[in-house]
Amino acid sequence: MLKRLLVALSPFGVAMAVASVPAHAQADPLASWIDGAAKARIVAFVKAATEPGGKDFVPAADRIAVFDNDGTLWSEQPMYFQLAFAIDRVKALAPQHPEWNAKQPFKAALEGDMKVLAASGEHGLVELVMASHAGNTTDEFAQVVRDWMKNARHPRSNRLYTELTYRPMRELLDYLRANGFATYIVSGGGVEFLRVVSEELYGVPPQQVIGSSVQTKYELRDSKPVIVRLPELDFIDDKAGKPVGIHKFIGKRPVAAFGNSDGDFEMLEWTTSAPGARLGLIVHHDDDVREYAYDRNSTIGKLDRGLDEAGKRGWLVVSMKNDWRRVYTPAR
Amino acid sequence: MLKRLLVALSPFGVAMAVASVPAHAQADPLASWIDGAAKARIVAFVKAATEPGGKDFVPAADRIAVFDNDGTLWSEQPMYFQLAFAIDRVKALAPQHPEWNAKQPFKAALEGDMKVLAASGEHGLVELVMASHAGNTTDEFAQVVRDWMKNARHPRSNRLYTELTYRPMRELLDYLRANGFATYIVSGGGVEFLRVVSEELYGVPPQQVIGSSVQTKYELRDSKPVIVRLPELDFIDDKAGKPVGIHKFIGKRPVAAFGNSDGDFEMLEWTTSAPGARLGLIVHHDDDVREYAYDRNSTIGKLDRGLDEAGKRGWLVVSMKNDWRRVYTPAR
Repeated sequence: MLKRLLVALSPFGVAMAVASVPAHAQADPLASWIDGAAKARIVAFVKAATEPGGKDFVPAADRIAVFDNDGTLWSEQPMYFQLAFAIDRVKALAPQHPEWNAKQPFKAALEGDMKVLAASGEHGLVELVMASHAGNTTDEFAQVVRDWMKNARHPRSNRLYTELTYRPMRELLDYLRANGFATYIVSGGGVEFLRVVSEELYGVPPQQVIGSSVQTKYELRDSKPVIVRLPELDFIDDKAGKPVGIHKFIGKRPVAAFGNSDGDFEMLEWTTSAPGARLGLIVHHDDDVREYAYDRNSTIGKLDRGLDEAGKRGWLVVSMKNDWRRVYTPAR
Repeated sequence: MLKRLLVALSPFGVAMAVASVPAHAQADPLASWIDGAAKARIVAFVKAATEPGGKDFVPAADRIAVFDNDGTLWSEQPMYFQLAFAIDRVKALAPQHPEWNAKQPFKAALEGDMKVLAASGEHGLVELVMASHAGNTTDEFAQVVRDWMKNARHPRSNRLYTELTYRPMRELLDYLRANGFATYIVSGGGVEFLRVVSEELYGVPPQQVIGSSVQTKYELRDSKPVIVRLPELDFIDDKAGKPVGIHKFIGKRPVAAFGNSDGDFEMLEWTTSAPGARLGLIVHHDDDVREYAYDRNSTIGKLDRGLDEAGKRGWLVVSMKNDWRRVYTPAR
């Protein structure tokens, strides 16, 4: 009703109407979430975890929340954004690497053969980035990523990739932090790629980003110390690797986990199978108007077992279509 | 003069004298540091890094300080405390492992052959702990460490190992945190060993402890998820591994580094070879009365190149004997 009222008012009237909205509604930290069961469940969890003396109270030091990135905090269709980055990099570096014309996955990247590339999954793209940037220092690599983020655009929306984060999820990050949670990103993607923008996009500093990585080496170049990227995988932070990564980097079991695909299954399982207040949440991509609709049959972000088992495991499945008032910022 | 005054006073007089000490002296956050050049240098660094508008101002997000543990935050003689733990564990588990009687380094551990063990260094002890605890879950291992910490005693002082942290360094940790620094431990020892006590001993939560590690695996046991320790090294966080570990876990270059041996050389080098306010500090063990005296010729905590180059690199060498008012708590 309030909405209809606002629509009917003149510009001057709107200002007055806004002023008369109750304070709690204006200050709603989850304003992009439609008032419904999903939002209520999130709020109830946070209330239970933070209520002193409550039976599910979680001390501040243990309030650890972990978020997948691709498909959970920003879009991942029609391809992982880091794959778009890798393709652009392979193209840029190709003149110095004639051998790539005959070698996969470089050949597929140069020819734009998305099927071959998509099938290689997050592992494949880490390898692509790995090989094309071996020998770079970590500082050089970060600069390349920074430059790309400033210019590269999403093929369908033509927006900067950095504009394609989910507003409701950013609100959720802020809301959890305001309630004393430490928020971590636990991504299958490359950690050095994501750390460049994690603070700016999500308010998550580099040391709270866990991801896949290549091995690195400390050395002196022109008598200045640098850290150099090597062409060898160090760690794949996906599937059962996610709880392993969480243990390795945080050393504590989280109390809340947020994902969108079966790559997050074990992270959700690890987080929610201990006593006390726990929240496991899956973002379901069912909005082909404002974003994309995909789940069981998608190569990217496949969600199958998670959908089957969410009910019996008590995980909250969030409908992008029905639970989110808006997807991106500004609203599309 | 104040000291002489206090000594001359009766017990009642002492209370009065304390009450008349100026407020800033009473509240000295580095009370266990003797007022001198070393303390002044630390205070000057923190002041420069935190003074808004100053030319060496460091934004809060970049105030990252890294501390070695063995020999920097607690004692490491006559052997790394984790080596004492490993020996105790090998002895406790020996009945189930008759093969250890003929196999190094287990044989040396069972026979108390410290020379062989010491020569194996931090790598060797990680391997010892690794092999003796392969197959344990991370929770089981943490409990074993917790129990040991409650009971095991240092051979010379007969105090609990947990009582052998350096009071001046704990004050320094608190002082840095009070000034907006994030404090990390970057240890050559095993990360899962140290994380059990890091919060209690140093106020450093598990996620801010970086160390050597074994590989782990996520699996279900009796349909409950666990993380299991495998008998394979994952990462050695020593020497050039320290800056690599810092980059891997923090993703930023620290502005202050604290160590005591050549195992910390690269960490100090990495931290201090960038512009702006930087502090590199080496604790020199030159106090054979209150602690131990060792440097260039020690198997444990060897400090040779660090002593040679500290001057030209601008690193502060702290004399345990002359710069510290007390070593442990309570004072010995």
